[in-house]
Formats: sequence, C-alpha cells, structure tokens
Amino acid sequence: MTIRVAIAGARGKMGTEAVHTIMNNDGMELVSALDYKEVGTSLGLLEEFPNHYEVPIYTNFVELVRETKPDVLLDLTNPLCVYERTKQALLHNIRPVVGTTGFTEEQLEELQQMATEKQLGCIIAPNFAIGAILMMKFAKDAAKYFPDVEIIEMHHDQKLDAPSGTGIKTAQMISEVRKAKKQGHPDERETHTGARGANYDGMHIHSVRLPGLVAHQQVLFGSTGELLTIRHDSLNRGSFMSGVTFSIEEVMKTNTLIYGLENII
Amino acid sequence: MTIRVAIAGARGKMGTEAVHTIMNNDGMELVSALDYKEVGTSLGLLEEFPNHYEVPIYTNFVELVRETKPDVLLDLTNPLCVYERTKQALLHNIRPVVGTTGFTEEQLEELQQMATEKQLGCIIAPNFAIGAILMMKFAKDAAKYFPDVEIIEMHHDQKLDAPSGTGIKTAQMISEVRKAKKQGHPDERETHTGARGANYDGMHIHSVRLPGLVAHQQVLFGSTGELLTIRHDSLNRGSFMSGVTFSIEEVMKTNTLIYGLENII
Amino acid sequence: MTIRVAIAGARGKMGTEAVHTIMNNDGMELVSALDYKEVGTSLGLLEEFPNHYEVPIYTNFVELVRETKPDVLLDLTNPLCVYERTKQALLHNIRPVVGTTGFTEEQLEELQQMATEKQLGCIIAPNFAIGAILMMKFAKDAAKYFPDVEIIEMHHDQKLDAPSGTGIKTAQMISEVRKAKKQGHPDERETHTGARGANYDGMHIHSVRLPGLVAHQQVLFGSTGELLTIRHDSLNRGSFMSGVTFSIEEVMKTNTLIYGLENII
Amino acid sequence: MTIRVAIAGARGKMGTEAVHTIMNNDGMELVSALDYKEVGTSLGLLEEFPNHYEVPIYTNFVELVRETKPDVLLDLTNPLCVYERTKQALLHNIRPVVGTTGFTEEQLEELQQMATEKQLGCIIAPNFAIGAILMMKFAKDAAKYFPDVEIIEMHHDQKLDAPSGTGIKTAQMISEVRKAKKQGHPDERETHTGARGANYDGMHIHSVRLPGLVAHQQVLFGSTGELLTIRHDSLNRGSFMSGVTFSIEEVMKTNTLIYGLENII
Repeated sequence: MTIRVAIAGARGKMGTEAVHTIMNNDGMELVSALDYKEVGTSLGLLEEFPNHYEVPIYTNFVELVRETKPDVLLDLTNPLCVYERTKQALLHNIRPVVGTTGFTEEQLEELQQMATEKQLGCIIAPNFAIGAILMMKFAKDAAKYFPDVEIIEMHHDQKLDAPSGTGIKTAQMISEVRKAKKQGHPDERETHTGARGANYDGMHIHSVRLPGLVAHQQVLFGSTGELLTIRHDSLNRGSFMSGVTFSIEEVMKTNTLIYGLENII
Repeated sequence: MTIRVAIAGARGKMGTEAVHTIMNNDGMELVSALDYKEVGTSLGLLEEFPNHYEVPIYTNFVELVRETKPDVLLDLTNPLCVYERTKQALLHNIRPVVGTTGFTEEQLEELQQMATEKQLGCIIAPNFAIGAILMMKFAKDAAKYFPDVEIIEMHHDQKLDAPSGTGIKTAQMISEVRKAKKQGHPDERETHTGARGANYDGMHIHSVRLPGLVAHQQVLFGSTGELLTIRHDSLNRGSFMSGVTFSIEEVMKTNTLIYGLENII
Repeated sequence: MTIRVAIAGARGKMGTEAVHTIMNNDGMELVSALDYKEVGTSLGLLEEFPNHYEVPIYTNFVELVRETKPDVLLDLTNPLCVYERTKQALLHNIRPVVGTTGFTEEQLEELQQMATEKQLGCIIAPNFAIGAILMMKFAKDAAKYFPDVEIIEMHHDQKLDAPSGTGIKTAQMISEVRKAKKQGHPDERETHTGARGANYDGMHIHSVRLPGLVAHQQVLFGSTGELLTIRHDSLNRGSFMSGVTFSIEEVMKTNTLIYGLENII
Repeated sequence: MTIRVAIAGARGKMGTEAVHTIMNNDGMELVSALDYKEVGTSLGLLEEFPNHYEVPIYTNFVELVRETKPDVLLDLTNPLCVYERTKQALLHNIRPVVGTTGFTEEQLEELQQMATEKQLGCIIAPNFAIGAILMMKFAKDAAKYFPDVEIIEMHHDQKLDAPSGTGIKTAQMISEVRKAKKQGHPDERETHTGARGANYDGMHIHSVRLPGLVAHQQVLFGSTGELLTIRHDSLNRGSFMSGVTFSIEEVMKTNTLIYGLENII
C-alpha cells in the first residue's frame, strides 16, 4: 500500500531534499504541500523543482486534508507553529513526522496523550541522521565491554566550537554505561599543551578542523591486542533522508508518540 | 567476592595467556591447574611461567576439586575429552567456561539439561574475541537500515583462504536481515576481472593480503550523503583475553548453558 | 605583483568554480572572459555569478588582449579549438594554462617550440587534482622500498567501470619501479571468486562501490611489522582548484611548456 | 654477489631480529658475530637461535676480520664503544652500518673524512624504520601544496610523553616548507579545553593513547573538496628490518658517509 504524504516546509533546505526523496520512493506518494504564504498552486511551478512535480500547494490545512487525504504529515518547518499543527494533524487522524526540537515538556505530554487516545503514530525526531544515531548507539554498547575509549571528530575549518555537539553527546552516552576510569598512563605528561585532547569523564576527545572535511567522527575502543572502531562520515544534507524515509514508514506501524529515532532503531 | 578459577590447558598458547590474565585480575584467583600428564607440581616450576606463580597442578580432577574448591573451570584444551570433563565439572557444582567447538548437538542438549537442573552457569564459546563479535553484531544491526554494504577484510600474506572465515560469517549474518539487493550499477563491468571482489548474496567482499597485516576487517555501509564504517583490528592473541575474563564473570551470574558469547553481548 | 588572468570557458562546471576561486585570490585579478558566443557584457550579469563580478566578456580574443592585457589565459573549454587559441595566446605573449587532453603529439611539439622561443611558460594539465597526483607520486616512491602493494579504490555506485582510471594509472606507475613479484601466499585460493580483487602485474586492485561515496583511493604497502598507507579523498569539483591556482602561479615562473602537473610537483 | 656481513650486538633485541633477517636473505651471508664477552663459539649454541645458525662468535675484532673477511659490519650495540669500532672497521676496509645516535659532531667529521679517503661507504642510521621515514618525507612534500595540516599520532597507553617524538619531528619537517598559517576558524573556541590538540606553529597535533595500539601516525592534509592522508602503522620491532636490509645493500654502492636514511631514500 502506498503511503500518502503531505509536506510542510517544502521550500526549505531539508524540505527540498525531502520532496525529491519522496517523489523517487515507490512506496510513497507526495499528495500535497502546506505553505504559510501563497507561492503558487503546484510545486512543479516553483523554481526549486522540475515541472513534472505536480503536487498541489495549500495554505489552509483543513482544505489540504479534505482534498488530498494524506496518511502522514511530514513537518520540516521551524519550531514556531509546529506544536499547533501537530495537534491539528492528530485531530484529523493524520500521523505526524516532525523534524524539529521546539517542544516543551508539557506539549510533548499532551501530544503523547492524544496519539495514544487516537491510536495514531507520531514521530518527533530532532535528528534524522540514522547513521550518526547508530554510531552513538554502537559506541554506547561497545563501552560496556571496552572502557578505554577515545573520540576523534573531524569537521571543516569554518566550525566555531570544539568539540562538536555529536562528539560531546557520544561521550555523554558512553559515560552512562562505562566503568569510571582515568585513561592513559598515570604519569603521562603533555610536552605541548593540549596534545591529549579534551578530557570528558576520563575519556579524551580530539577535534580536527581542515578545509575539505565535512562532518566525520570515529570512536576508538582499545583493549589488549585489539581495536574496535566505529566511524560515521556525513558528506551532505542527503544523509538525513534515510531517516525521513524510515520515519514515514515507521509512523504507519506504531500507535503512540516516539521522541527520538534512537528509541526505535 | 573473588572468583576461584581452575584452568585446564594452561600450557597451550591460549592457556598461557589466560594464566597471566587471571593472575593479574584482582577479582579472580587461579587456584589450580589440570594437566593430562605429570609436568610438575606447580605452574611456577614450568619454564612458561615465573617462579612466583604458585598454582598447584593436578592430573586427577576429583582431587583438584576436593583440595582447591574452584568456582569455575576454564577449559582451553582441545576438543578430545572436553565433553566428559564439562559434565564432570557440573556434577561437582563447578561452572565451566569452555573455549572450543567440539560438541555434538546431543552433547550440548545434555549439558544444557544438567546446567538447568543444577542451576549452574555454563558458557561454551567457540570465539572469545569480544571485539570481533561486536563488529559482526553491529554490522547486522546496521544492515537493517543500510542495505548497501561492502566488506574489506585484511590479513597477513601467509593466509591461504580468501575471503576469511570472519568475512563470510559477517556476510551471512547481514544477509539474514538485509533487504535482498544486487549492489552497484546494473551495467557495471570489470575491465580487470575480480576488481569488484567476491559476490555474496549481492554484497561484495574484498580480501587484502600483505606482510605486516595481522587480522583486520571493516564493514562499510553507504547511503545518500553518508557512510557508516565498523572496523575491528586484531593484533595478537591477547585479543581473546577480554572474552575470557568476561565469560568467567558472567558464568557466575547465570544458571543455564550459553553457547556463543554473541547471545549475552 | 597581482597576476592578471583571462578565462575561457567561464560558464562550464570547472569554469564556474575557477571564476570564484580567482575572484577570491588576493594575488590574482580576473580581468576578462572569452566566450564563443554573445552571452552578455559582464560575468556579473549572468545567472551563474553574483552581480559584483564585473568582468567584461569578449568573443574576440585580439580585442580581449588589447583591452584587458592579461598575463595568463586560463582555458577550461573543451578540446575543439583549444590548440589554435593556445598558439594565439603565445603569439600575443600571454601564458596559457590549459585543462584539457585534446592535443596531438605534433601540436604539443609545436607549442613547446613556440614557448621556448618566446621564453613563455605554458602549462597543459589533463589533471588539476594535486592531491591525486601526489598520491600517485608517493605511491611510486614507496614501491621502491615496499614491493608488497594493494590498491583499494572506492567510488559512488553509479560508476560503470572497475577498477577506476586512477586505480589503473597508479598500478602502472608503481609497476615501473617495483620489483616484479606475485604477492600473497603461493597456494592461496579463493573460496568465493573475485575475493582477492583484480590482478595487475602481481598487485591486487579492489573496487568498492557504495552510495554516499564520491571518489577515494588508498594505496597500502606492507612489510614485516609495518604498514604505509597513502589515501586521497576527493569530495567535489573544488578539489581541482588548488591545481588551477598552483598552475597560474607556476606558469609565471617558467619559460617553457610543461605537460602534466606531475612534472613540476 | 653475496654480501658478507658481520654483526655486533647479536644478542640484543634489535640484533636478534637482524640475525634472523640476514640468515633468511638470499643476497647476504652472516659470516660472524662480535661479542664483548665470551658467550660461546657459535650463534647456534645460544638459546636465542636455532642450532643450524652456525655463525662463529669472536671477542677480538681483528681476528674476526682475518678469519671471516666480512664486507659489512652491522653494529647494533649501544653507543659506548661504537665510535672506536666504526673507525677500526674502516681501517680494515669494512663498510660499517651503525644503528645508534651516540656520535659527537667531531667524531662524525672524522669518520666522514676516513670514509671518503678510503672510498668506503659508511651508513649511520639513528632510525631504521623506512616506513616512518617515508611518511615524514611525503608529509613534508605535501605541505608545500597543502598548508592545512593536522597530525594524529596513536600509541599504547603506557607511553609517557605526548606528543610522540615522531609527531613532533614530522611537524618540524613540515614547518620548514609550509607557508606560515594559523589554521582553523579565527574565532574558534574550545568548550572543553584541549579539544583542538597541541599547537605547533599553527598546526595541530593530537595524541591518542589506548591499550591495543602500538605506534601509529597519520598526517592529514585538507583543501577545498579533497583530503590527502599519509599513515604509518608500526606493529613490532620487525618494522626496522627493511631499513637494515636496505642499508646493508646501499653501503656497498656508496663510497662516503651517510648520516640518516632520509638522505638516501
């Protein structure tokens, strides 16, 4: 059965990619797009998309629902009105897949209740990058057996912060399960300050910055006579699309709210 | 509580390493060794070990049990008498950790029954390399989301078979969960035969052989805009020791038979 | 001293990148563009470029030279008229930097003679990717000391041929200096055909194809107890720009024809 | 023609490996060994070596020369008497290959003079690891074209100093040719101190320490759209043997003193 998808935020960076992804997926049909302002009657008339993308655009959600009967609303807009729209979708028996972080605890609780009452799936995913989520998950698993870990994250040289958010999040997840341990030789010393990287709970994080790099991370585990390495390379925004596709498929199979893809991967 | 360990096969390659590992582990005590022939009264008198390894050697198992009261029997001998000795251990309320593959289905079933009846843990592990087991497990998990996989295994140039056993086993495990798929461009062609590697169920396996290499494998998953890589490097026999330690600890916490560490990792 | 550059082929894929590169280089000035047809009077008026790129466009080369006095002509057009234009540039005392392969032996010889007579640099570079050229050069150097080599090249899964052109060229360059040797164990056997990759003069080449990959190659050298690896990752067309910049700088310092950047790197 | 080699220091760690290497090399013959004390009449009688290594041991150098007529003296002893012995070797028309650093400037000058007068090759190599030397050489070459560099060196967790000597030496060699440059974003900041590693002349060095690692280093060069990586893995002392073999062959072809293999590689 083909899944009927409506999209909100089609003209954004993520949205544009998502439109192409759904149009090329045999198991899905892009039945309509929601925009907050009048931009034209069909995606194919916008310069972002080829002419044959004949997907009607609506500014009124109720109208969109009545005329195009979507199963899923993929919402890739900014956090501003996302809560109201998600509620509205559930009310109309449409399963939301939302890619944003702008919900309060209370809002999440209310959406959880609504989803459960109506027996509808609802996925809210602050991070669609399945590859990155798997890397963190595997790293956490491995740390149970290998307490000696170092993280090397590598990004383009226009990045301001070091370590990266993913680097820190990985270290956090590892430290939840890892036996507390100060790594390295007790008497080790840096002849050049900073050589051993940042210390996070006894683990070391190293941040490499070079032009040509995009977003990469490897987590290294060492033990007598062996090494285990988990590496993720993200080369462009396309890396989020496997998570978008996966979420649209999964939201059809569940009947409750899921916050974070790590809980169903 | 310190775990009291007896060892069978202390003079073999794996055994020698295991003796050192247990002697250096604060949570364990090596209380005795079992040998099939008279080689001396104490490990410390053998040339393989330093003098202060004062661990008595027995040729009679019942005597060993009576005099040294082990909690666990670590058996690293060859498969010949291992079944009888494992049964005997269970009868004497000792938990076996066995590192061999020489059991028939019937024998495993009988041992399973005995372990359950006596409420004793018993671990039989054809492969103690936790790092390699994790690599295969993670690869199988990732293949659910990323059906495009290639395996590169790399070994020293004295290896006879290609691909390696681990390479094939990884491909088998992946193909249990992976959507069937012929990878690569449908019209791709090899201008030099073999360039695309071995074909296993649509996946490709590449075997690199060079002096200087020991035993390495990486599993690469690709998707739009991203790569996920899981790599294991085994540099020497020491890589089995984390699995030995882990098994001795786990066998104390369980009260049934476990065949293969992948089932408790 | 700022180098005055004119460009031919500004609207092509390489050309567009090159325009940005030169506009952002403090040591260079883009003084004019040559086009084969009327497309507008200035690059800034074309949709490919921002408005402030006020670079006049000419269809007549002599006029371009007279009015904008370039030091260098960067020619990124297709091979069709490139020979005549290169000759013309030298006649007008302009140093050509040409990124194409469409010259006959005779044409190259004649250009060589002209360049030497006029004491003008002239660089013809079929490949501007300095990183890839260095990889091949280093691989050739290393092969003198390490005769055991394997090449792993990795590309996106839409590539038709395996191995890649760079993979084969690397093997050719290595085999010029490497002691002839059939690698691997003499009795090694493939239980799955193709596992050991393609055989090139005793070396093995492995071709990995996955979505998410772009163009990557590693050359591995093994010897007792050690490995030396040279790896190049090309992520987008920008990887040619370091070679373009380098060539424009070098052509000002030389007074003869150079065919192939490998001869001056 | 087979090269006749005498060895000093056969019982040391490096020496033992070297004995095996020369015994297994078809182009060389190990004709004698020099020891500072009486340890036996033949290497084959020592416990370090198999019985069929029938290589006579001498304590008197002049006697060794007269009776076994070596072409080359491979000296792997400590620095104590190495200067006198090297001089003596040259006086007896034997070409020295010395693996130590214990020479003063004056001593080197005198040996240089002797070697040139007698037209004899003499190689003094503080570092026999050809792979590591090539890595540093290639890194220096690449830095001319790619000023953005980061070094990641990885060692076992018993190492005291960070960064490693090789890491610092590589940075030194690079900074001789690299355009001075402070890498990374001008406003980059460390939220966890040390994340960006040690700063060496604007380059960053990262030191990873894990059990299971031996001695590894990668040098990463980044530029728009591309990366060039040079990596060396040293897994055991055997990695010095290619340099020993190479030096013995080269010392026969030269007629002057060479200090450091980097000068002939």
